[in-house]
Amino acid sequence: MTSQLDKKVEAWSARFSEPLPELVQRYTASVFFDKRLALVDIEASLAHATMLAECAIICLDDFNDIKRGMTQIRGEIERGEFNWQIALEDVHLNIEARLTTLIGDAGKRLHTGRSRNDQIATDMRLWLRAEIDQIHKLLIEMRRVLIELAEPHVATILPGFTHLQVAQPVTFGHHLLAYVEMLTRDSERLLDCRKRVNALPLGSAALAGTSYPINRQRVAELLGFNQLCANSLDAVSDRDFIIEFVSVASLIMTHLSRLSEELVFWMNPRVAFIDLPDRFCTGSSIMPQKKNPDIPELVRGKTGRVNGNLIALLTIVKGQPLAYNKDNQEDKEPLFDTVDTLVDTLRIFADMVAGIQVKPEAMRAAALQGYATATDLADYLVKRGVPFRDAHEAVAHTVRICVERSCNLTDLTLDELRNILPAHVALIEPDVFSYLTLEGSVASRQHPGGTAPEQVQQALNVARKALYTT
Amino acid sequence: MTSQLDKKVEAWSARFSEPLPELVQRYTASVFFDKRLALVDIEASLAHATMLAECAIICLDDFNDIKRGMTQIRGEIERGEFNWQIALEDVHLNIEARLTTLIGDAGKRLHTGRSRNDQIATDMRLWLRAEIDQIHKLLIEMRRVLIELAEPHVATILPGFTHLQVAQPVTFGHHLLAYVEMLTRDSERLLDCRKRVNALPLGSAALAGTSYPINRQRVAELLGFNQLCANSLDAVSDRDFIIEFVSVASLIMTHLSRLSEELVFWMNPRVAFIDLPDRFCTGSSIMPQKKNPDIPELVRGKTGRVNGNLIALLTIVKGQPLAYNKDNQEDKEPLFDTVDTLVDTLRIFADMVAGIQVKPEAMRAAALQGYATATDLADYLVKRGVPFRDAHEAVAHTVRICVERSCNLTDLTLDELRNILPAHVALIEPDVFSYLTLEGSVASRQHPGGTAPEQVQQALNVARKALYTT
Amino acid sequence: MTSQLDKKVEAWSARFSEPLPELVQRYTASVFFDKRLALVDIEASLAHATMLAECAIICLDDFNDIKRGMTQIRGEIERGEFNWQIALEDVHLNIEARLTTLIGDAGKRLHTGRSRNDQIATDMRLWLRAEIDQIHKLLIEMRRVLIELAEPHVATILPGFTHLQVAQPVTFGHHLLAYVEMLTRDSERLLDCRKRVNALPLGSAALAGTSYPINRQRVAELLGFNQLCANSLDAVSDRDFIIEFVSVASLIMTHLSRLSEELVFWMNPRVAFIDLPDRFCTGSSIMPQKKNPDIPELVRGKTGRVNGNLIALLTIVKGQPLAYNKDNQEDKEPLFDTVDTLVDTLRIFADMVAGIQVKPEAMRAAALQGYATATDLADYLVKRGVPFRDAHEAVAHTVRICVERSCNLTDLTLDELRNILPAHVALIEPDVFSYLTLEGSVASRQHPGGTAPEQVQQALNVARKALYTT
Amino acid sequence: MTSQLDKKVEAWSARFSEPLPELVQRYTASVFFDKRLALVDIEASLAHATMLAECAIICLDDFNDIKRGMTQIRGEIERGEFNWQIALEDVHLNIEARLTTLIGDAGKRLHTGRSRNDQIATDMRLWLRAEIDQIHKLLIEMRRVLIELAEPHVATILPGFTHLQVAQPVTFGHHLLAYVEMLTRDSERLLDCRKRVNALPLGSAALAGTSYPINRQRVAELLGFNQLCANSLDAVSDRDFIIEFVSVASLIMTHLSRLSEELVFWMNPRVAFIDLPDRFCTGSSIMPQKKNPDIPELVRGKTGRVNGNLIALLTIVKGQPLAYNKDNQEDKEPLFDTVDTLVDTLRIFADMVAGIQVKPEAMRAAALQGYATATDLADYLVKRGVPFRDAHEAVAHTVRICVERSCNLTDLTLDELRNILPAHVALIEPDVFSYLTLEGSVASRQHPGGTAPEQVQQALNVARKALYTT
Repeated sequence: MTSQLDKKVEAWSARFSEPLPELVQRYTASVFFDKRLALVDIEASLAHATMLAECAIICLDDFNDIKRGMTQIRGEIERGEFNWQIALEDVHLNIEARLTTLIGDAGKRLHTGRSRNDQIATDMRLWLRAEIDQIHKLLIEMRRVLIELAEPHVATILPGFTHLQVAQPVTFGHHLLAYVEMLTRDSERLLDCRKRVNALPLGSAALAGTSYPINRQRVAELLGFNQLCANSLDAVSDRDFIIEFVSVASLIMTHLSRLSEELVFWMNPRVAFIDLPDRFCTGSSIMPQKKNPDIPELVRGKTGRVNGNLIALLTIVKGQPLAYNKDNQEDKEPLFDTVDTLVDTLRIFADMVAGIQVKPEAMRAAALQGYATATDLADYLVKRGVPFRDAHEAVAHTVRICVERSCNLTDLTLDELRNILPAHVALIEPDVFSYLTLEGSVASRQHPGGTAPEQVQQALNVARKALYTT
Repeated sequence: MTSQLDKKVEAWSARFSEPLPELVQRYTASVFFDKRLALVDIEASLAHATMLAECAIICLDDFNDIKRGMTQIRGEIERGEFNWQIALEDVHLNIEARLTTLIGDAGKRLHTGRSRNDQIATDMRLWLRAEIDQIHKLLIEMRRVLIELAEPHVATILPGFTHLQVAQPVTFGHHLLAYVEMLTRDSERLLDCRKRVNALPLGSAALAGTSYPINRQRVAELLGFNQLCANSLDAVSDRDFIIEFVSVASLIMTHLSRLSEELVFWMNPRVAFIDLPDRFCTGSSIMPQKKNPDIPELVRGKTGRVNGNLIALLTIVKGQPLAYNKDNQEDKEPLFDTVDTLVDTLRIFADMVAGIQVKPEAMRAAALQGYATATDLADYLVKRGVPFRDAHEAVAHTVRICVERSCNLTDLTLDELRNILPAHVALIEPDVFSYLTLEGSVASRQHPGGTAPEQVQQALNVARKALYTT
Repeated sequence: MTSQLDKKVEAWSARFSEPLPELVQRYTASVFFDKRLALVDIEASLAHATMLAECAIICLDDFNDIKRGMTQIRGEIERGEFNWQIALEDVHLNIEARLTTLIGDAGKRLHTGRSRNDQIATDMRLWLRAEIDQIHKLLIEMRRVLIELAEPHVATILPGFTHLQVAQPVTFGHHLLAYVEMLTRDSERLLDCRKRVNALPLGSAALAGTSYPINRQRVAELLGFNQLCANSLDAVSDRDFIIEFVSVASLIMTHLSRLSEELVFWMNPRVAFIDLPDRFCTGSSIMPQKKNPDIPELVRGKTGRVNGNLIALLTIVKGQPLAYNKDNQEDKEPLFDTVDTLVDTLRIFADMVAGIQVKPEAMRAAALQGYATATDLADYLVKRGVPFRDAHEAVAHTVRICVERSCNLTDLTLDELRNILPAHVALIEPDVFSYLTLEGSVASRQHPGGTAPEQVQQALNVARKALYTT
Repeated sequence: MTSQLDKKVEAWSARFSEPLPELVQRYTASVFFDKRLALVDIEASLAHATMLAECAIICLDDFNDIKRGMTQIRGEIERGEFNWQIALEDVHLNIEARLTTLIGDAGKRLHTGRSRNDQIATDMRLWLRAEIDQIHKLLIEMRRVLIELAEPHVATILPGFTHLQVAQPVTFGHHLLAYVEMLTRDSERLLDCRKRVNALPLGSAALAGTSYPINRQRVAELLGFNQLCANSLDAVSDRDFIIEFVSVASLIMTHLSRLSEELVFWMNPRVAFIDLPDRFCTGSSIMPQKKNPDIPELVRGKTGRVNGNLIALLTIVKGQPLAYNKDNQEDKEPLFDTVDTLVDTLRIFADMVAGIQVKPEAMRAAALQGYATATDLADYLVKRGVPFRDAHEAVAHTVRICVERSCNLTDLTLDELRNILPAHVALIEPDVFSYLTLEGSVASRQHPGGTAPEQVQQALNVARKALYTT
């Protein structure tokens, strides 16, 4: 007996009179990329078959044949022995054709009560759910590594920049925990997205449901879905869950690209706040001295890639009438590429961050430049009764004088300071200098969210606990 | 007395020697667009002042002055009498300058313990939270209108399309409920997003926190925020909440653009499934007969606008080092434009959908064309023991013969049908024709999510209940 | 002897102490995708070596060895025998390592006076120039096919739509030539882009030029570049030519997506203006009657893909400091994907369009519906002295009456028409009906660009001639 | 007499029975933003009227009335006295209504032989052509300013970075000329785009051309268009010229964002290569010492805005069937916003660049750090016969030793150098140190495109000449 599915074209051959030329076959086929769904496709088919048998839509013998056939096929795929055929277009028809070859008519009965439209939607959700779980773990690991790196540096001072200009001193631990915050929000978004991924389209068939007495709830149960897609037309055409996931991925990559930008800056020899392990850098083919921070640069670049995938997906879905249209075949590659990019990036990034060598002296030297404690001088005056705006103006004047003299605020004597600010002379006492030190400045930010080392330590403890909850 | 804040440039004038030329002033100023934040800015300032007074950072007299001044300013703004000055750059400095003019030194004390960096982040969140609440109501209204429209049509049959080809008959109520599903997911996403919007940045000051003994929890309480932003560096530079909101908006617009595509198609005279109320259409300046579905076309177009805003925002944030950079000033216009587009679109769309005139005869006529019940014939054979793939092949053969004869499946006699399918002659009985009717076909999709009118009615009941929960 | 280049890491090994873990190797390697540049890489290397020998920077023996080695390598690559090694990172180091294995020290001298930075820029330009030439031919073929399809239909009438509503009758030939116009502009843009692709970066070395006495003009001559990149820093970091090309590609895909949208609409059974050859359609796995226009739907979807690539590239380059940064490695995949998508799409599309079966009766039937000649009635009145706006108003009134009566304009008698428009009764004569026919309407658009068959024929002749010039 | 155009709705009122609610009116109206096309709309109308009169389609009296009316309207608009009415929807109907009020029936005749579809396409092209000419001048000015800044610094040395790591010394003049190259390509692209903008759609009427005996060539002549749009369907629906322009704008902004990134980096106190004039910077509301490079940061941010506009436009056009659809109304705001952003940015940027204060000492100090001349040492060995790869390896070893000793290459004695490279001891002579100086290094890049000061001066001369040709 020869399978009617040896070549995809035969699946609808009676309708057509012409052979598909090779290029068209390649252009329309998806098996190149959707074969990575093979194992979830089998998993979903087995759940479907179980339900069909329980509902007496297929007989027990057929069900047992299907189980046996699928077990063999899974083995062939895992061992790399499966013969994927482009003529069979996609992962579904490839597996079904092989099944029918192996077990005969029972294989032809598997597709009862379903369609490739609900089948692919189910496969994508099963596959993505597992990837989300993996990414969620990687995000937690990434946060853990940042927390570990931050711990010894809750009091290590570096200049806090705004506009890449020295603003106020902060601690390096505080700085790193800012990224933990971002990634924690990403974890939350990912879990919110997972809720919407975790719904079962199967049973929607082509678009309208099926006339067989199926039990969708049972299939959901078998596959661990916590709800049914409630409308068959929507179920086969909905790609929201993909777009939502990719938009979450864009934000994760955006956060990593921000950290990457900083790593590249910190590696510049004028800055030299950190060093990256050699294994995350490369050299040059002609400049023997080079050590390039390739990984963070690539991460920045790959952010563009994921944003591009997001636009591709939004463009594909925009303006599509119900229900399924072939445009949607283009959803897979951007999704797969996004998942691969994200998984690899998170793995490497966590390893790289764990190996960052911090150079506290360079950080401190930079913090001493740029009048980082000028705000503290203004606050000193305010606390002694000067209205904030007047104090701000007075200190700006002081800074301008220091710039002219090429000196720091702390290089001024008490008399000089008083001379510069004659209106406030009575308020300025010797203790003013303790407020102008880096340590004094950071220690004074003593409230939740502030950069005082004590607060940073508390925030770190909270962030560590959250590893087990979000 | 003249205010030191009459012109923004004076706020840091001591540091600068040159006047800002007019173009640069306009280029860097944001007051044109951020003045719409004025009322939330005042609200946040009053909460801040309340806390400052409670913590004894400012005295009670100052606090009372601030309250009085702000009340007057709010009135001026609401009455359109406020004199916005571009030289004062943004909404914050405009209001503060006016306050200082009105109440003197107390106005200068308001800015104690905060910075424009945490102030703008707070304003944006307060403003967006209110807009989200409005949009959430509009989404519910939109869903309600779709449900109302669907109710009389749970059994009205139209062709279900895939690839814009006739696939299987579905009911119009079922079709409309597909959009209810999409919008319900959008509601969920919006509420998930709201959780992350609803956190307080204030107290983060410029980037490091403040040296004043502030009580951030109290401010959060006064403004109804349910958590504090936990890291000051993150709090002033985080724009995730904006990007997440705009990505939710992109999906909402994508869904409305899908429905719009269908409305435009349904309005085409060859299709004529519906008519839109005149007030949502326009005519032509030269073609007297035209009635153009302008609104759905505009909605399709405006989807591009929101997608563009999303890309703008992702591009802006990508690669930014900590903490605040001026690039972020560019976050406001895309956000405001997205909110305005979304609010207007939802309002109009709900009104328009409520006025759709359905033409069931045209729908029915279209469903009778294109062999919509061919799958039912295949299923008929399968239920009598033919393997699905064999039945599919046999029916494809039957359809080909009908195409050649330019007739429908139901135009065949029992004998003709049996002649066409000689292998299955014994299985084909007179009852086959009841399976080939449109009503028979839809009625047979009798499971959750299926298009059987009974199921559609149940789904509709569930969707109506959900209006009160999501 | 063992090559120092057996493993890429050794190229800069003296600088590093740690081995690159496997994942990092894969993440940073580009040989997976840049090996498609192998033949242009060899071509550029041979031109470089020729110049080095001519300038006496390497000796003749070395040059001959390089030529011999490269000939062998090219053969190995073409025969699929070349052993690509991920450890050697990219196409350049793979080829250079093999060369050194084959010919020893001479191989190590090839890289004199260049760097991978200018090497990859040169390869990309050589490769893209050839692809542009291929795409240019495909665009011409696409235009030719549209012209061939239009020729027999210069007078075939279908409804011209605006807003997907019947506007005025046009001819199908005219409609098709609209797409020829779009693609002709695309051809122009492509040739404009080619000018900027066709410049030589080689000689810029890593970023600053080289200290060897090279002759860049000679290399340009050998490789057929018509200008030198004039600044070494720009030359190694410029990716404009890629972005410009992809933006041209986006417009081409946009145009094909517009035609695709129409093909899908025209294939809908309610419209049925055309049929597509079976080989460009597919069936359904469960609906035996289906014939889906897969190709145009995929083309619509793939437009999103190319737009996504454009955003990826713009995002990558935005904000990069000079000169080369690793972010740029991410430029290749979007470019390659864009070229592949475009080439395949154009090939298939041209073949598909050539096979379109036109159904003039359906087109005519549709044109008769929707008052397509209402404008002609207005024009009739205007030519008899009625101000345009008054005529427009009068005809709108007439159409409203026809809608109420469910009749066409031509169904009215002369008396009825005069009754409807009592203000213009004296102007309406029996000849009015000739203006209300479809043929009369199209024939009257008798000026360059108009839809009169004679004009369409002339436009077609011009378009055909342009195949040989643009 | 009351104008029939007092309210837009009346233009097609006979067709409609319902009033347009206010929100829909606002949503569909474009007069808010398209009124900036008023003057080109009048210019185009006058050219159209001239042709109508010359072709005897309207009489001379009507034409004179139209001229007189339009002159008055232009005056009203220029003086800000024109009463724009949202009820009249767009710029065209507002002007036409006013014209008819002023001159009666002649005003109603102006619209003969045209439609708003070809009218708006013509207006957009006229307007954009003028903006392109302005932008072209601004690009030249921007290039001129860069050249002026470069001139005194053709020999000023700073570190050339790749990967933000020190690579090789280059001159600041050379660095600036890289941007001149980018902007010169942008100028070319802009002029290429202009060719395609400069074509006349008028005469295409709604979509099919017109039945009046018009002379399109004459209108083109009057408006300075150098060609006619050759197909009426294409002419009214083509938005390529807008998309192409915005993609050119995206590249210009991308280039300015790259320079901005560098300016921000150069302003960081650790780097301090330049200072920006105060008038392009702002201070902080709480940090008295701050001087923030606001302009370059905003330019980086605004790049996202223009990229977003590009995506909006591509999304809008994708998948639109012929001919005009209302989606296209959404083309104006992204275009206007792009032009405004570009014009303002170029103006300010040119002024800012002219005011850059260069700090050669800081540049030199940075160039001395990071082994910028290591490549020169390798080249030294190569020129003495060592294969390039071996030399590269040897120098990498040398650098490693210097890193361990925290010294520069030039800090080594001849003996030390020979000890480090025993294999090459015979080749290393005292002259080696002259190759390791910054001046020796840059001077050796002595070929077109190289950083040798002499070459930079020549490149500068060429660039200056090109100001008058491209």
